Amino acid sequence: MDAMGGDLGPRSVVPACSRFLIRFPQAELKLFGPRSQLQTLLIKEPPSVRERLEVIDCAQVITQGCNPVQALRHKRESSMAKALEAVAGGDCGAMVTAGNTGALLALGRSIVGTVEGVRRPALGKSLPTEDGTCFLLDLGANIDCSAEDLVQFARMGLEAQRVFSGKSDLTVALLNIGAEEHKGTEEIRRAGQLLQAAPDINYVGFVEGHDIFTGIVDVVVCNGLMGNVAMKAAEGVIRLIGQKTFTIDKKAPIKRFFGQLAINLLRKWRAQLEPGRYNGASFLGLEGNVIKSHGGASSEAFYRAMLTAKECAESDLAQQLGRAMALQNQRHTGCD
Amino acid sequence: MDAMGGDLGPRSVVPACSRFLIRFPQAELKLFGPRSQLQTLLIKEPPSVRERLEVIDCAQVITQGCNPVQALRHKRESSMAKALEAVAGGDCGAMVTAGNTGALLALGRSIVGTVEGVRRPALGKSLPTEDGTCFLLDLGANIDCSAEDLVQFARMGLEAQRVFSGKSDLTVALLNIGAEEHKGTEEIRRAGQLLQAAPDINYVGFVEGHDIFTGIVDVVVCNGLMGNVAMKAAEGVIRLIGQKTFTIDKKAPIKRFFGQLAINLLRKWRAQLEPGRYNGASFLGLEGNVIKSHGGASSEAFYRAMLTAKECAESDLAQQLGRAMALQNQRHTGCD
Repeated sequence: MDAMGGDLGPRSVVPACSRFLIRFPQAELKLFGPRSQLQTLLIKEPPSVRERLEVIDCAQVITQGCNPVQALRHKRESSMAKALEAVAGGDCGAMVTAGNTGALLALGRSIVGTVEGVRRPALGKSLPTEDGTCFLLDLGANIDCSAEDLVQFARMGLEAQRVFSGKSDLTVALLNIGAEEHKGTEEIRRAGQLLQAAPDINYVGFVEGHDIFTGIVDVVVCNGLMGNVAMKAAEGVIRLIGQKTFTIDKKAPIKRFFGQLAINLLRKWRAQLEPGRYNGASFLGLEGNVIKSHGGASSEAFYRAMLTAKECAESDLAQQLGRAMALQNQRHTGCD
Repeated sequence: MDAMGGDLGPRSVVPACSRFLIRFPQAELKLFGPRSQLQTLLIKEPPSVRERLEVIDCAQVITQGCNPVQALRHKRESSMAKALEAVAGGDCGAMVTAGNTGALLALGRSIVGTVEGVRRPALGKSLPTEDGTCFLLDLGANIDCSAEDLVQFARMGLEAQRVFSGKSDLTVALLNIGAEEHKGTEEIRRAGQLLQAAPDINYVGFVEGHDIFTGIVDVVVCNGLMGNVAMKAAEGVIRLIGQKTFTIDKKAPIKRFFGQLAINLLRKWRAQLEPGRYNGASFLGLEGNVIKSHGGASSEAFYRAMLTAKECAESDLAQQLGRAMALQNQRHTGCD
């Protein structure tokens, strides 16, 4: 765990770690950050937690303003870099950070390394649908993507969704602005042709933004610009609904009783949708399990990202993905 | 009104027209479509409605599968083309269609014409925020946009939002995947520099997808791919919440009475957000007011698009926008 990322830093990470260790008595955690600062917070935790939580002292911290090049050149002693090294060296099964995404993408590729045959690692995440989840990628790791990149995202997304949903026989679609063949960019259209021609991929065609949430497809693929905007717009609406709830409640005091019931129901539904519940994007295509938590994550949300990391570590998603890509490369080069 | 667009065609358009004419006793409408089909539906409407609704017989209909080139070459006698001609010729103050977007973009440019100085017309729409609206454009008319295109979208969006919100002193932002200067594509970054340098634009920087709904900015500008995905992802979440509502209601029969009251409240909140309420995207940069309704629009939603059209016609948005662009061109060329 990189203790120093996100708006709250160790104030969200330490309570999340504590909750995780109590919930999973076999788990062990390494916590990366300035020792003195972390010890102050850990002193309140029970001994059963402290004895399974090793603090690794890191002097450097990566701030939100740090750009990827600065991170690569000058932040090798940071909590984020050291946590990535722990994954690269096999000491840890997965790492989680709520820190600077640009720095994570650069340091992740550099320290953990990219799976052979993967052109570009991508960020992906499960989002809620009516009766399940849909895995969306890329969420912002890659701005410009070729058709070949999008096809590879499809393969990585299918592998990840297999692990997260426990289902086989998954379908994949490309995000576009319409279902018709002539819609979208050259890259999207060509990726559609390539996916259509791939015998091992169950490709269902183009889908639109709302289809991410209808459950008609298991994996939705797009470039990082579209994926980021889709995910954040969805989060924005959920937050807006939350705010409207409280506003209207206060404005209509006579309806407060029924309003409260409504709000309780709404809270339940929101909890099923809210960004925190689906926190933890997987950085796919690296040779280790790297999870990005929302920068504004609460302790609850960071804990959710840790659960995603646990799933990745237990199933060894990174290794499975590596095997799937190697198999794909063999097929591609004609060897078997 | 193009009677023949969208999934429901005249079955949503005719009742919406009737409601509109009853609500606005001074209004007059022209309804474009095959006369015999429309007459069958109109026969049920009261005389006060029928006498202010002129049916213009059009033999051709543009289907969803028709591509823009086909529309331009072979669909000049369609209900959509004829309704556009009525706007171009000044017979109507605005037109609304729920039909094929690609065909509308092509026919709109060709028949109504583009305002002088406008490089690319764009689709834009008001979306709800906590205490107002945010105008988002482009929603899918333009896939690839240069920095200069985005700057022009900013100007057009400000003009439209001035009319729709009744406010002056509006702010504008660029949609991006982060607030930092180095984020996004070359086009977005350069558009940011151009907007920063424009003395007549109150530019606040980059915003992310969720900021469309927070009310921190009045106009959000992006290319059509990002805008379309943002809007549709948001709509998808709202629909998902709607579906969850009814599922849980049925599952808890003992709470049905209070549940029903709660759901009535929820419906009110949802109604403030649902896509239908914010139906009607304005096709900005044309020499007439052209409104695109959602293709899946119900009669209620089509009526909302008609209200948007009424606002555009009454304020003559297209003409105001034309004047603003002309003024901008004068400034640009040094004349005054």
